[in-house]
Amino acid sequence: MTEHTLKQFDIDLDRIRRGVLQMGGMVEAQFTKALEGLRSGDMASIEAAIEADKSVNLEQIRLDNACTHIIAKHQPTASDLRLLLTVIKAVSDLERVGDEAKKIAKAARRLHANGTSSPPKVGLSHATQLALEMLRAALDGFARGDAGEIDAIRLKDTEVDSDFKGITRQLITYMVEDPRTITSSLELLFIAKAIERIGDHALNIAEHVVYMVSGEDVRFTKAQTSGMSGTEARP
Amino acid sequence: MTEHTLKQFDIDLDRIRRGVLQMGGMVEAQFTKALEGLRSGDMASIEAAIEADKSVNLEQIRLDNACTHIIAKHQPTASDLRLLLTVIKAVSDLERVGDEAKKIAKAARRLHANGTSSPPKVGLSHATQLALEMLRAALDGFARGDAGEIDAIRLKDTEVDSDFKGITRQLITYMVEDPRTITSSLELLFIAKAIERIGDHALNIAEHVVYMVSGEDVRFTKAQTSGMSGTEARP
Repeated sequence: MTEHTLKQFDIDLDRIRRGVLQMGGMVEAQFTKALEGLRSGDMASIEAAIEADKSVNLEQIRLDNACTHIIAKHQPTASDLRLLLTVIKAVSDLERVGDEAKKIAKAARRLHANGTSSPPKVGLSHATQLALEMLRAALDGFARGDAGEIDAIRLKDTEVDSDFKGITRQLITYMVEDPRTITSSLELLFIAKAIERIGDHALNIAEHVVYMVSGEDVRFTKAQTSGMSGTEARP
Repeated sequence: MTEHTLKQFDIDLDRIRRGVLQMGGMVEAQFTKALEGLRSGDMASIEAAIEADKSVNLEQIRLDNACTHIIAKHQPTASDLRLLLTVIKAVSDLERVGDEAKKIAKAARRLHANGTSSPPKVGLSHATQLALEMLRAALDGFARGDAGEIDAIRLKDTEVDSDFKGITRQLITYMVEDPRTITSSLELLFIAKAIERIGDHALNIAEHVVYMVSGEDVRFTKAQTSGMSGTEARP
């Protein structure tokens, strides 16, 4: 590449990096608004969280296309290519976090709109806090090009999963004791599930960052692919 | 590229294409086994569907890495690059279909293991059939490099979604009428949700194929990005 193209390339990469962090901020804000609306029943927050999903979707397409364009234009290799492919995957996970936040907002709208028997009290705040921390840690790792948090994020994912199981058991008890709570209990179950999935996507992003930093693919590591190299496999 | 490299490149691309279709076949078989186990309670089918997820996960990593390797090695542009990026996205959706099939199998195992009060009868077969057809049509479109089925697949996705809503209403009725069915009804709800998500992933794959064929990004088209070009956007 000529010096000028190289400069342009660095500028493009830097824009992409910042774009991902901005999109991460958008999604985090959308998630927070949805939870705020769930807690308070404030319809403005709920509608804002639902509306925000459109911009998140557009942002994914914008960044995805930008990466494709840069790969085609500059034909990067090694770590630059890994960065761009990581971004394509990470923004897909961020977009799905946005989908889950939208689901939470819609369930919150139904819960507060129906206004029927007050929904059963279940503790979602612990799982919510963990999912938010996972998302922030994953994005922070992307920003710093540092995958050091992966084990902590995995640990939190396990916590969120067991929280979800506990919440499900709790809601079943409510439903059995008072069938009038069944509809609202199911809404809360869907909300808990969405929070759990947001944790999953945060973990996915953190695993993409490991690949970006080390070239090592650690997805499903616990399952069966420990130490599989990022370029060993062939079709 | 030299003629030899070109030949190697074509061989690699062809392997990738066949790899995706093989992975699609694996996932379809896993999904079918899970449903078979749900219907019959045959533990061998259920365990096979759960076990199959590991190979599906490895297959995604293998194809994903192979695409990255080819992009780095041959630095393809235009339609070849679009094919490889489409594969990276499509195998991620296929892997998630595998996850959902595994969830169905695990819920089926719990349902039949508990063996308590016979689970409520809900019609899952229509949604299941549609989801399978969507998956086949999406993979077929990939194989033929033809995105003509996208509208039909979208239509089926809407049908699956409304099926899911209907099933949810039906299960709520069961639960209200007989709280003893709550636990098994929830398992069926999770299963119906998994089927609905498999439809979503099939639609994603079909949309990736549109991009592969036309270079046009049609994700969220119905929402707000109609006709957005595959390379217009910039960060």
